[in-house]
Amino acid sequence: MKHNYKLTLAFDGTAYQGWQRQKTTDQTIQTVLERALSACLEGPIRLTGSGRTDAGVHAEAMSAHFITEEGWPAAAEGIADPEGFLWELNRRLPEDIRVYRLEEMPLSFHARFHAKGKIYRYQIDTRPKSGVFRRKYVCHIPGPLLVEEMRRSAGMLVGTHDFSGFTMDKTKGKSKVRTIYRIDIEAADGLLLLRFYGSGFLYHMVRILAGTLIEVGRGEREAESVLEILEHGERKAAGFLAPAQGLFLEQVLY
Amino acid sequence: MKHNYKLTLAFDGTAYQGWQRQKTTDQTIQTVLERALSACLEGPIRLTGSGRTDAGVHAEAMSAHFITEEGWPAAAEGIADPEGFLWELNRRLPEDIRVYRLEEMPLSFHARFHAKGKIYRYQIDTRPKSGVFRRKYVCHIPGPLLVEEMRRSAGMLVGTHDFSGFTMDKTKGKSKVRTIYRIDIEAADGLLLLRFYGSGFLYHMVRILAGTLIEVGRGEREAESVLEILEHGERKAAGFLAPAQGLFLEQVLY
Repeated sequence: MKHNYKLTLAFDGTAYQGWQRQKTTDQTIQTVLERALSACLEGPIRLTGSGRTDAGVHAEAMSAHFITEEGWPAAAEGIADPEGFLWELNRRLPEDIRVYRLEEMPLSFHARFHAKGKIYRYQIDTRPKSGVFRRKYVCHIPGPLLVEEMRRSAGMLVGTHDFSGFTMDKTKGKSKVRTIYRIDIEAADGLLLLRFYGSGFLYHMVRILAGTLIEVGRGEREAESVLEILEHGERKAAGFLAPAQGLFLEQVLY
Repeated sequence: MKHNYKLTLAFDGTAYQGWQRQKTTDQTIQTVLERALSACLEGPIRLTGSGRTDAGVHAEAMSAHFITEEGWPAAAEGIADPEGFLWELNRRLPEDIRVYRLEEMPLSFHARFHAKGKIYRYQIDTRPKSGVFRRKYVCHIPGPLLVEEMRRSAGMLVGTHDFSGFTMDKTKGKSKVRTIYRIDIEAADGLLLLRFYGSGFLYHMVRILAGTLIEVGRGEREAESVLEILEHGERKAAGFLAPAQGLFLEQVLY
């Protein structure tokens, strides 16, 4: 019998070329995970992630699923004890990738198609001198930001819009319409955290949204400028691509 | 005229062989800092730290002082603008070392001799699976710890004692008497933080204290066992040497 398993995992993306398997490098999360899983289960495993992440982006709770083959006793045996299996799997993974949960799902479950939404967090270190211990997990923007202006601008981005101006995705015929449910901006412990709740996000979308809001915060652009970007869909009218290291996939909602 | 300057700095110790300059490696905090300072001030600078730190130990606020030579115009000119000087200095430092403050002090000031005390923090990740983002800044001890027993044991360590049993320092004739003012144990966000306030600490002392308290927390030794270690001064009676990566020099008190 086939089985379908969902994994929930965290990774420090610093050393990786993103989630997606690539022909030109083995340094992707998917490649490293598939190898460890295949070794544990003594057979080739192919993972399907909840989506891609850019090189250098981090995840606190990414999801992925894999299906085991019919009549695969080693797999069934190994997974019969999920805690033991996770221990074995994590032992084979580098310390910057940890799998936290393994759940058996119906065969129809799909990590990407069934994701109802995602929460991303962008971390800005606003202190005059950047911190030593968080340096790989923040974008350093010294000096005070106009947080209320950023909140006002963020409010205009909430809703269902064509986000063509906020992505590098040029695929013709692909809808660029997405829904942002909410954007929270919160100051905590020398950091400014931008939290994006959405149905899904296009290529580079969160980082361009973050870059645009940072420019609003610095007073370099009007809060209202995002309305024009939404209307005209011109990438060059939007803000800079905020660095990957400040971005965390916080949660995938099913 | 000579001038005496105090620096306050933070470093991520992961990549370094500790504070102290060494003949066999350039990967020490002191070596890297002295080079950057000497380049900024166009002359050889020798730093005196508030103390040594072990390889792999981190610091949030370490102190050090240096004295500039008589008739050294480049130095006087550079340091006349402390913010500009710090910017220039940090630009020349790797991102895992940051200097936060520069203060001119009386010529008599000495970073080590005038330190009245130090605060060290030991960080334990107590979650079943270790965190991905804090992995270089904690010691992972899964499972619950007997925190009240640890507090009771810590209380017995407070005071002025001969800490010979809690150090690797075998220097004959050197006093092993130190005063611990306070030990706080606090749970926060999946971490257990052990904070040691003391007049000064011997070689490996905080890490052996932490290792001993961890063994108490695991129920592997009695809280009262520390009394015997204080009395007999036998290193082998004390706990394991907790790994350097969990240790932070939090503050030097003057």
